[in-house]
Amino acid sequence: MFTNQLALDATTAQRLIELALTPVPDVPLRDAMLYAVRGGKGLRAFLVLESARLYDVGDRAGHAAAAIEALHAYSLVHDDLPAMDNDDLRRGQPTVHRKWDEATAILVGDALQALAFEMVCAPGAGVAGEARAELALTLAQAAGAGGMVLGQALDIAAETGPALTLDQITTLQAGKTGALMTWACCAGPRIAQADITPLKAYGDALGLAFQIADDILDETGSVDAVGKAVGKDAAAGKATFVSLLGLDGAKRRAVDLVDTACDALGSFGTRADALKDAARFVIARDK
Amino acid sequence: MFTNQLALDATTAQRLIELALTPVPDVPLRDAMLYAVRGGKGLRAFLVLESARLYDVGDRAGHAAAAIEALHAYSLVHDDLPAMDNDDLRRGQPTVHRKWDEATAILVGDALQALAFEMVCAPGAGVAGEARAELALTLAQAAGAGGMVLGQALDIAAETGPALTLDQITTLQAGKTGALMTWACCAGPRIAQADITPLKAYGDALGLAFQIADDILDETGSVDAVGKAVGKDAAAGKATFVSLLGLDGAKRRAVDLVDTACDALGSFGTRADALKDAARFVIARDK
Repeated sequence: MFTNQLALDATTAQRLIELALTPVPDVPLRDAMLYAVRGGKGLRAFLVLESARLYDVGDRAGHAAAAIEALHAYSLVHDDLPAMDNDDLRRGQPTVHRKWDEATAILVGDALQALAFEMVCAPGAGVAGEARAELALTLAQAAGAGGMVLGQALDIAAETGPALTLDQITTLQAGKTGALMTWACCAGPRIAQADITPLKAYGDALGLAFQIADDILDETGSVDAVGKAVGKDAAAGKATFVSLLGLDGAKRRAVDLVDTACDALGSFGTRADALKDAARFVIARDK
Repeated sequence: MFTNQLALDATTAQRLIELALTPVPDVPLRDAMLYAVRGGKGLRAFLVLESARLYDVGDRAGHAAAAIEALHAYSLVHDDLPAMDNDDLRRGQPTVHRKWDEATAILVGDALQALAFEMVCAPGAGVAGEARAELALTLAQAAGAGGMVLGQALDIAAETGPALTLDQITTLQAGKTGALMTWACCAGPRIAQADITPLKAYGDALGLAFQIADDILDETGSVDAVGKAVGKDAAAGKATFVSLLGLDGAKRRAVDLVDTACDALGSFGTRADALKDAARFVIARDK
């Protein structure tokens, strides 16, 4: 049931992005943007839409779901660049700079970030102006020098500095992947102009569990199953949750975080079952 | 008088950006972001603040001025990258990827784009939520695959295709530099929630005049005066306004556009004198 919903929500986000790009002239930029947003799991779109359904505003959340998928896609395209992680493979396909070129990949990422803010501010979405401004503000904070990009900068700085401690890795990951995951979970209450506290607690725990699961996959997964290069962190001697906690310790910590995430949604009863399933899925996935 | 105001408005934008970056940890990212936003003319900040003063909302426009300067700085940092224009010099100083490295320059641009949306949505700015959402939406449209990034993509496509016609160059430049210039000019009426028609007409003409002046500088300026490489377009055999209209023809067209820009502000009388001065400055500048 959860995986069906995930596929539906991914499609909703995908279609809104395709619609937004329809007026763009037929230059490689447009094809490369569409290529970059295709094939994702759609987890973030699901988190936006499901948190919105929890507040009975699911029908107003499509644009926010598209926004987070566009923003996530941009971050992957830039992460994969030669000057960054220099990856050839993403979601089992050539990365954008391999299929096109570096200039196109830089522009695709830049345009996808702009598209994310365009989507989140879309007036046709039926969301109040105040709520759209708040969604855009918090998305910018989660994406920029106080969130995702900061996490990436800390990650790069760690490559040449001393190995990170558990606290430092937790801070780094809270920026790099956690901030946007939490944003997705808080989109529902923000659209409904309600208190974000329970969904923020859920999102914070989920984001960290997700990253621990990523580190476990990097250690134990195969490139065919994961769809991107694996074992790179260990090869680079980088500290990860697995290197610091051990494989079993990391798995236990991920399970604890999923419990924390589910507990945060206690007051919603069975209406939050899909989000609880999502939390369990995040640490059980094989890619 | 106009140049004094320009310097003051540039400082206003600069200080708001510095303030926003104060909580960012001391990683190279932060220093490089501050480096990238320093030393600009501040023309776009002035256009935001002066258009706002025309509508008596100058005191609410600081964050929008900071936003456009952050966005402009991001576009320059990414434009200068080796995979794009591969420039070593910007505003007379080493470009970000030369002073730091490519990864830092990519992240600086990404974070500055996010910062632009954070600034424009800042709730402390005293701008109504509806107006902030509209400012962010239109900024995203002007910056992304229907505006600036599209212009850059068309520019790259032109390098390998047939020489562009005057119409095609006009379309390209309307995206590449014009859309954000027009956004800056429309910020005032948008903050005041007023009709943008006169400021849009002014901005459209100003943006095109600015780009023609840029092409003239690329042809006639010296690297010392301009602060960046010159003569690159001619060396690359790229069609420009100068190659298509001739030097005198390009100068005449720029003067006509400044007249069009000033005429659009006729209903404001002498209150629009600073904006008219700015239009004349744009085609008289030597950098």
